[in-house]
Amino acid sequence: MTDRRIAQLSREFRSALLDDTIPFWLDHATDRQFGGYTTFLDRRGDILCPDKPMWAQGRIGWVMARLYNFIEKRPEWLAASRHAVDFILAHGFDADGRVFYSVTREGKPLRKRRYLFAEIFAIMAFAEYAKAAQDPGILERAKKLMTFVQDIHARAWPATGALEPKVFPQTRPMRGHSMAMIQINTLQIVRDADFSSSPLPYDRMIDAQIDEVFRYFVKPEMKALLETVGPDGEYLGDTPEGRCVNPGHAIETAWFIMAEARRRADQALLRRALEILDWSLALGWDRKYGGILYFVDIEGKQPVQYEWDMKLFWPHNEAIYATLLALSLTGEKKYEQWFEKILKWTMSRFPDKEFGEWIGYLHRDGTVSHDLKGNMWKGCFHVPRMQLYCHLLLEEMLRKGAG
Amino acid sequence: MTDRRIAQLSREFRSALLDDTIPFWLDHATDRQFGGYTTFLDRRGDILCPDKPMWAQGRIGWVMARLYNFIEKRPEWLAASRHAVDFILAHGFDADGRVFYSVTREGKPLRKRRYLFAEIFAIMAFAEYAKAAQDPGILERAKKLMTFVQDIHARAWPATGALEPKVFPQTRPMRGHSMAMIQINTLQIVRDADFSSSPLPYDRMIDAQIDEVFRYFVKPEMKALLETVGPDGEYLGDTPEGRCVNPGHAIETAWFIMAEARRRADQALLRRALEILDWSLALGWDRKYGGILYFVDIEGKQPVQYEWDMKLFWPHNEAIYATLLALSLTGEKKYEQWFEKILKWTMSRFPDKEFGEWIGYLHRDGTVSHDLKGNMWKGCFHVPRMQLYCHLLLEEMLRKGAG
Repeated sequence: MTDRRIAQLSREFRSALLDDTIPFWLDHATDRQFGGYTTFLDRRGDILCPDKPMWAQGRIGWVMARLYNFIEKRPEWLAASRHAVDFILAHGFDADGRVFYSVTREGKPLRKRRYLFAEIFAIMAFAEYAKAAQDPGILERAKKLMTFVQDIHARAWPATGALEPKVFPQTRPMRGHSMAMIQINTLQIVRDADFSSSPLPYDRMIDAQIDEVFRYFVKPEMKALLETVGPDGEYLGDTPEGRCVNPGHAIETAWFIMAEARRRADQALLRRALEILDWSLALGWDRKYGGILYFVDIEGKQPVQYEWDMKLFWPHNEAIYATLLALSLTGEKKYEQWFEKILKWTMSRFPDKEFGEWIGYLHRDGTVSHDLKGNMWKGCFHVPRMQLYCHLLLEEMLRKGAG
Repeated sequence: MTDRRIAQLSREFRSALLDDTIPFWLDHATDRQFGGYTTFLDRRGDILCPDKPMWAQGRIGWVMARLYNFIEKRPEWLAASRHAVDFILAHGFDADGRVFYSVTREGKPLRKRRYLFAEIFAIMAFAEYAKAAQDPGILERAKKLMTFVQDIHARAWPATGALEPKVFPQTRPMRGHSMAMIQINTLQIVRDADFSSSPLPYDRMIDAQIDEVFRYFVKPEMKALLETVGPDGEYLGDTPEGRCVNPGHAIETAWFIMAEARRRADQALLRRALEILDWSLALGWDRKYGGILYFVDIEGKQPVQYEWDMKLFWPHNEAIYATLLALSLTGEKKYEQWFEKILKWTMSRFPDKEFGEWIGYLHRDGTVSHDLKGNMWKGCFHVPRMQLYCHLLLEEMLRKGAG
C-alpha cells in the first residue's frame, strides 16, 4: 500500500468518524431528560423504541472515552462517556450485582438475560472512562465487575449450563465461543486503562482465554473456528449449532488475538491468529454477491437461521480492520487485496449518504432489508470502533513508513 | 368460480397431498429405530438435525389421523398417527406434566420452554388419533392436557407473566395473541373428536377465546389485529412489539373464527372475522414483489425482526385456505381474486418440483433463501393441512353447487 493511499484512507476514516458517525449518535441518541442514550433509531435518527439496551449504553460510553483517550482531550467526549456511565450506575444493576439486558427510557428494568454481555460492555465503559477521567473509583468498579463476570462464568460452566444455550446440560453439554472471545478484548481494554498500583494479572487472564479459544473452538483440520462444541471441544456435527461458523465473529476473534500477538511480538501467536482470519474470509465471503455471510455450515449444508445469508454491518467492520491489521503486521499483498475488496463492497452499500451513519442490514444481494440505524445490537460501537482503529493504525503505518 | 375450476383445484390439492406431501414425510421422517419423526430435513429429505421437536411430533400425529378421519380409513395413516402419539407418550412429558420443546433422536430431553405450544400440538394429535382409533384413554389424555394448559395459562397471567415475553411484568405487562388464537383451533379439534358422554363445555370455552381476541387484539380503528397489547388491550405504540402485525398469524385466526361462524351460522361473527382477513391481506400483501410479508409495523415504521420481509411458506398456506373459505361462505368475487392471486404466487415459487414437498423460506423478492424442508417449525403440518382443507371444502362447494 502506498503512503499516499495510507494517508488518504486515514483522512477518510477520521472524517467519517468525527464528521458523521459520532455527531449522528450524539445528536440523535443523547437523552437529556432521563440520562443515557436511546440508540434504537430509524434511518433519520428518530426513535423506533425508547427502551435502553444496556449493551448499547456500555458501548457508547466506551467509544466516547476511547476518542478522548486516543484522538484528543475534548471535554464533550468525556462528558458523553460519563453520561453513559452515570446511567449504567443509576439504572443498570440488579440487586445481585448483575447488569440488566434492557431498561425503559426512565431506567426501569425490562429484561435480564443469562449471558454476561451487558456486564462486559459496562466493564469496557467503566475502564475506558476511568482512564480518561483518571477516576480510581470507577476503575475499581470495572475490575470488580470483571472478576465477578469471571466467577459467574466459571461457576456456571459446566455444572449448570446456565449461561450456555437453553438445553438440558445433562443431555447435551455444549460450550460456546463468545465468552472466551469477548473476554480477550475486555481484558485488553481494562489492562490498558489500569493506572492503579494493583493491576489484575491481565496477561495471564488473557492467556487463559486465548488458550480456551485454541483448545476448544479452533479446528485446523476443518479450517474453521466453530461457535459451539462439546465440553472437551468435541465436534457436534450432527446438529446445526455444531456445524455453525459465524465468520464475522471468528474474524473479530482473530484480530483480538493479532492485537495481543503484536503487543507481545509473538510471531507464532500471530500466525495462528492469521490462520483463523484466512479460513474465515474464505468461508464467509459470498462468491455470488460479495460481502460476508452471517452464518455458514462447515459441511456446506443449509444453515438454519432465518438471517444466515444477510449482510450485516458489523462483520464488514471487523473484516476491514482485521485485514488492515494483518497487512500492517505482515506486509502480505493478499491482505491488502482483501482489505480493498471488502472496503469497496462495504463503502458502496452501507453508508447512508442522505441521513448519515450506516444502514444496518442488507439482503444477500446487497439490497437494503432494514434501513434502521440502531436496535438491540446496532448502536454506537462497531462502525466507530472500526473507523477509529483503522485511522490510528494507518497513522502508525505512515509514521513507520510501511508503504 | 366455475364448477370446472372447483373440480380441477380439488383434484390438484388432493393429488399434491396424497402423492407428494404425505409420502415425502412418511418416507423421510419416520424413525423406525427410535420411534417418532425426524422432521428437521434438508431439501432432499436427508436429516439436517436428528433432534425431535415435540411440536412436530404432535403436528404430524394430528395430520395422519385427520387423513384417516376425513379422507379414508387407511391403516397406514392410523399407524403413522400412533407412531407419533407413542413417541410423545414415551418421551414427551416432564415430571410436572408439561411437554418438552425438543428431545434427542433417542428421546432424551433437550429443551423445555415457557410457552405452551408443545402441549397444544400434543392435544391435537391425541384428540384426532383418539377419534380415529375410538380410543377413550387417549381422548381423556387430550382433554386432561387441554384443561391443564388452560389452568397454567390462567395462573400465569397476569401475576407472573411467565408465559409472556421475557420482560419484568411489573415494568411493562403485556398480552400476546397466540394463546387465544391457538386455543380456538385446538378446542375445535377436541370438540369434533370427543365421542365421550362427558364432553367439556367446548362452545363456551371457544367463546371465551374468541372474546379475548376481539376484546384485546382486534383494533377496528387501526384496521389490524395486533400481536401484543397491554393487559387491558392498550396499544403499546412506543415499542416495535406493540406496533407489530403478523399478517399470516392474523389470517390464521380469521379462518379459525370463520370456521366457528360457519358451524353456528353466525353471520355477525363471520363479518367480524372477514374484517380481520381483509385488513391482514391489505397489510400483508407485498405490493412490490407479491407474496405475504412476515411482519408489518402498523405505523409503517421499519419492522425490527431480521426476517420481517421474508416470504415464509406458512402464511401463504393460511391465506390460500382463508380466502377459499371466505369465498365459499360469502360468494364474494374479491375473495376469489385474492385466492387465485395468492395461489398463483405461491404455487410458482414454493413447491419443489425436483425433490417434492415445499421450499420453506424465500427472500422478499421470491428467490430461495433456505431450501430445507423442515426445521423446528416447518414439518408435516401447514402444507398438508391447507391441501386437505382446501380439497374437502372444494368437494363441499361442488356438492352444494357453489359455482
